[in-house]
Amino acid sequence: KPQNERQKLPVVPQGIERDEFLKALAELKSQLGDEHIEINDKPLRDGWYMEHPNTHDSMTILDEEEFVASAIVYPGSTEEVQQIVHWANKHRVPIFPISMGRNLGYGGAAPRVRGSVTVDLGKRMNKILDINPEDYTCLVEPGVSFYALYEALKEKGLEEHMWIDTPDLGGGSVIGNTVDRGVGYTPYGDHWAMHSGLEVVLPMGEVIRTGMGALPGNNTWQAFPYGFGPYSDGIFSQSNYGIVTKMGMTLMPNPGGYEAFMYTFAKDEDLEQLMEIIRPLRISNILENVAQVRHVTQSLAAIGQPRTRFYSGTGPVPQEVIHAAAAQTPLGDHSWAYYGMAYGPSHIRAHKLALIDQEFKRIPGARRIDPATLPEDEYFWARERVARGVPDIHELRWVNWAPNGAHIAFSPVSPIRGRDAMKLFALGKRIHEQYGIDFFPAFCVGLREMHLIVEIVFDRADAEQKARALGCLRDLVDQAAREGYGEYRTHLVLMDQVAGTYSWNDGALMKFNERLKDALDPNGILAPGRCGIWPKRYRGRGWEM
Amino acid sequence: KPQNERQKLPVVPQGIERDEFLKALAELKSQLGDEHIEINDKPLRDGWYMEHPNTHDSMTILDEEEFVASAIVYPGSTEEVQQIVHWANKHRVPIFPISMGRNLGYGGAAPRVRGSVTVDLGKRMNKILDINPEDYTCLVEPGVSFYALYEALKEKGLEEHMWIDTPDLGGGSVIGNTVDRGVGYTPYGDHWAMHSGLEVVLPMGEVIRTGMGALPGNNTWQAFPYGFGPYSDGIFSQSNYGIVTKMGMTLMPNPGGYEAFMYTFAKDEDLEQLMEIIRPLRISNILENVAQVRHVTQSLAAIGQPRTRFYSGTGPVPQEVIHAAAAQTPLGDHSWAYYGMAYGPSHIRAHKLALIDQEFKRIPGARRIDPATLPEDEYFWARERVARGVPDIHELRWVNWAPNGAHIAFSPVSPIRGRDAMKLFALGKRIHEQYGIDFFPAFCVGLREMHLIVEIVFDRADAEQKARALGCLRDLVDQAAREGYGEYRTHLVLMDQVAGTYSWNDGALMKFNERLKDALDPNGILAPGRCGIWPKRYRGRGWEM
Ligand SMILES: Cc1cc2nc3c(=O)[nH]c(=O)nc-3n(C[C@H](O)[C@H](O)[C@H](O)COP(=O)(O)OP(=O)(O)OC[C@H]3O[C@@H](n4cnc5c(N)ncnc54)[C@H](O)[C@@H]3O)c2cc1C
Ligand SMILES: Cc1cc2nc3c(=O)[nH]c(=O)nc-3n(C[C@H](O)[C@H](O)[C@H](O)COP(=O)(O)OP(=O)(O)OC[C@H]3O[C@@H](n4cnc5c(N)ncnc54)[C@H](O)[C@@H]3O)c2cc1C
Repeated sequence: KPQNERQKLPVVPQGIERDEFLKALAELKSQLGDEHIEINDKPLRDGWYMEHPNTHDSMTILDEEEFVASAIVYPGSTEEVQQIVHWANKHRVPIFPISMGRNLGYGGAAPRVRGSVTVDLGKRMNKILDINPEDYTCLVEPGVSFYALYEALKEKGLEEHMWIDTPDLGGGSVIGNTVDRGVGYTPYGDHWAMHSGLEVVLPMGEVIRTGMGALPGNNTWQAFPYGFGPYSDGIFSQSNYGIVTKMGMTLMPNPGGYEAFMYTFAKDEDLEQLMEIIRPLRISNILENVAQVRHVTQSLAAIGQPRTRFYSGTGPVPQEVIHAAAAQTPLGDHSWAYYGMAYGPSHIRAHKLALIDQEFKRIPGARRIDPATLPEDEYFWARERVARGVPDIHELRWVNWAPNGAHIAFSPVSPIRGRDAMKLFALGKRIHEQYGIDFFPAFCVGLREMHLIVEIVFDRADAEQKARALGCLRDLVDQAAREGYGEYRTHLVLMDQVAGTYSWNDGALMKFNERLKDALDPNGILAPGRCGIWPKRYRGRGWEM
Repeated sequence: KPQNERQKLPVVPQGIERDEFLKALAELKSQLGDEHIEINDKPLRDGWYMEHPNTHDSMTILDEEEFVASAIVYPGSTEEVQQIVHWANKHRVPIFPISMGRNLGYGGAAPRVRGSVTVDLGKRMNKILDINPEDYTCLVEPGVSFYALYEALKEKGLEEHMWIDTPDLGGGSVIGNTVDRGVGYTPYGDHWAMHSGLEVVLPMGEVIRTGMGALPGNNTWQAFPYGFGPYSDGIFSQSNYGIVTKMGMTLMPNPGGYEAFMYTFAKDEDLEQLMEIIRPLRISNILENVAQVRHVTQSLAAIGQPRTRFYSGTGPVPQEVIHAAAAQTPLGDHSWAYYGMAYGPSHIRAHKLALIDQEFKRIPGARRIDPATLPEDEYFWARERVARGVPDIHELRWVNWAPNGAHIAFSPVSPIRGRDAMKLFALGKRIHEQYGIDFFPAFCVGLREMHLIVEIVFDRADAEQKARALGCLRDLVDQAAREGYGEYRTHLVLMDQVAGTYSWNDGALMKFNERLKDALDPNGILAPGRCGIWPKRYRGRGWEM
């Protein structure tokens, strides 16, 4: 993708004089050391997943100068994070914390407010502070990736003793993913539910430890999440109320065996019956992990070939073309693929797999795929690795669907019901067709609900495509909300819109969120606008988008 | 127990003129209807568990006039709760919400501030608003007890389809128990973790719905707890930040079979090895529920006989006497009893039970008790019912240990470790001996931690006994905290002390809690002092105890 000229750098946050801002930065440099602050005055480079920028969103759907940092600061300790926060309050500079900044599809490393100073925690604060094989827990800093945690277990010879849980891409940080309430695919997939204990620097600079961490000399910070009194961890997820500098995470004991399995279903309409079959099996833990139910279009894209390899026309690739191409793959033609995993010793697995087979086979045309028939490079094996906690990046491949491929996600929450699945599928399909965009639906089935994850892949260098993708997303969010489906998480660009859909009782929840924000961050310096929460200084001044 | 004379009633909250207070009450009566407000001007009756008072703590360890309500108000709807809150703000009257007020051992129905107006939510707001057999969820109001929920499932013929989870006593409310972060004994025993969605009236009178409840027309309020943005539910548990008027709860699918089992262990010292055996089995879910490991003294008390039946001396009943008496019971002599339950179809249970048997039997003298040898009235069967979600009140029996029996709990959190169990056991024993009190330790083993629950039983009519019990508790709390063990929950009388032990970084967490309290409740009307959180109007004025 061609690089833009940049001018008048760094971008200064609105409301501050350039001179004063540069003086303030110089002051911060003198406090933390020159080498720990970088002014963002060079060309913006998108890099790739493993060498992603911390200056902006490398998959931006807007102009890349829109959500751009003025500078990046690298604290080396909790005390330095506190210093940065004090500095921000003194100079009224918006700061935006990231752990590793690999939040691709949801905004990458970008701050919501142009010209914010990005606090890149992960670069220097990247230690695994504890691994406890007796309690099956760990304590990590923001720069610890799923890969790094997995490698550390291996180094200690513990990777057979206990498993981590990783999202589809293993390069993100345990903390960044968890505070954004990300999900993985072992039985420990609900990361937020699985954490235990936070250390948080508050927007005024105080530092607290939650749960048992507040008891000096305690021995259960990672073993018991609640502590005594209000359980406050939750308000530090998907918010802008604090900077998490340490987090405890529980780890899964080796279940004593595992076996990945896969089924395909022939028709789009099979989704309805499939979801009715899945629900009771999932709630009763016969289906034990957050499984993915993927549409054939995305299965095909996961091969990693550009869409032009299958189709040279404009508009969505016709479904006949998709099916014909799928028929040539090792999976064969299908409409939906279910990727699952059974855990435990073989006789326990056999019990569950038999039940599953009996139920899934009630759907005419259901096929169990024998993994032995699948080549090593098949996407199935990526899912298999992830479902046993082995970090991977195969999932990136479908981004190749478009040249300069980037993506942005629509992820509404739905009951696990046939009629809801069909309704969301139809809604997504209709709106995608309207905007001429290929439709990639995958249902991630939680315990009592599922997230539909729709990824829109677009060419970052093509302004028209970006505008269409954004229009499509905005319609998806609004129309889904009208039917009662709300996003579980969203991209920076959509945060105001999504927050606006959670409007019960005249927006009472947002008023409550704002009240907390103003109490904790009276100067409004911490990640203004994140998750739609604007501090007082910004409210009513047209910042929403 | 003899009844005290009462004088100058009602007790007026400090800082308000009697006349003004009575006028304010008259105003509230005119708003809600005379019959929905009761002035607390009659003799205080303790009643018994099923007919407990809402005027005071019927198991009080202080003078019963200490934590006493001035009046009780019975709202009939969320709107009426809002009206009461507005009224309290207008007149600066402290109010104290209870769901059913059966929080015995932790303060019963009593308010923390003398003369508060108790908001008894449960009397009129007691509907089960929804039972969803497809998602295995329900939505309840504050007055729904575990008994009532269970009966409702039975009425609908759903009690075989799905289970509730109940604490040891089934007469409490689902909401009251859950917001105090109570525990039960099926795999759904961590009630807080199992709830999904709250409706909360805030201290200024606004009403919010959390999670998906904030999305108008949503269909996942009880299926997905988090929603979008800060996950704020946690700050409404063990706090005084809001009044919960509705709560969603998940229910457990019938696991397809169950089998209660029990082991006894001969020596006090066996506890150490037992905990080392339990930990990995529990974390890997071979042991599937919050099991209790009970000391023989409490097993004996659970028969329901007074201690004078075994021993007529003063001071703790000697252990020889306890063991000799235990030898006469169907369990036979022992030091520790493990009460467990295996779930699932028989071949799955057999797999787990064999593993457990092999491990437990490594302890010399371990005995598996055959349930068939136990009479119907044995305590084992109460544990069996509770572990399959059937409400019960057998557990009350050990309160008969003393005449006018009452109790108060010490419940520190500990790692599941042999050495920690022994340390806590020794600490508890030493301090109980010092105060001449019988020691009833039971370990409730969670997933990665356990709560030691020590119940001190005392004669409510005996001031000297009460003083000793309180002294013992205060020492237990302080000395345990010095070793790194903190309470998971506590009695009104101990809240300041316990909160004070969570003092890391100069009490940073409490300062944070106070900041939230002041932001949400600027007039300090909602349950001042609960969990040690005092609003600004009260701080620094000697309210702590
Ligand atoms: C192909 C593809 C597949 C993906 N699959 C998944 C998946 O399966 N599951 C999933 O959950 N995600 C998935 N993602 C999204 C994303 O990659 C991961 O969530 C990733 O782990 C987030 O990156 P990070 O850890 O670097 O977070 P960051 O970018 O560091 O953090 C995310 C956001 O959280 C906040 N934040 C981060 N750290 C802190 C802190 N210490 N204190 C306060 N706030 C903080 C910031 O606002 C930040 O923008 C996928 C993305 C792609 C491109
Ligand atoms: C012998 C015995 C055994 C017990 N065993 C157990 C056990 O196994 N597990 C266990 O958890 N407990 C146990 N308990 C403690 C207690 O009985 C239960 O927790 C009971 O469910 C609490 O009573 P309740 O539901 O009526 O709560 P309430 O008394 O109504 O509520 C408890 C407190 O929570 C707050 N609260 C209640 N409702 C609201 C609301 N709607 N909004 C805001 N705040 C509110 C109030 O401060 C109130 O004081 C036991 C007690 C005894 C005597």
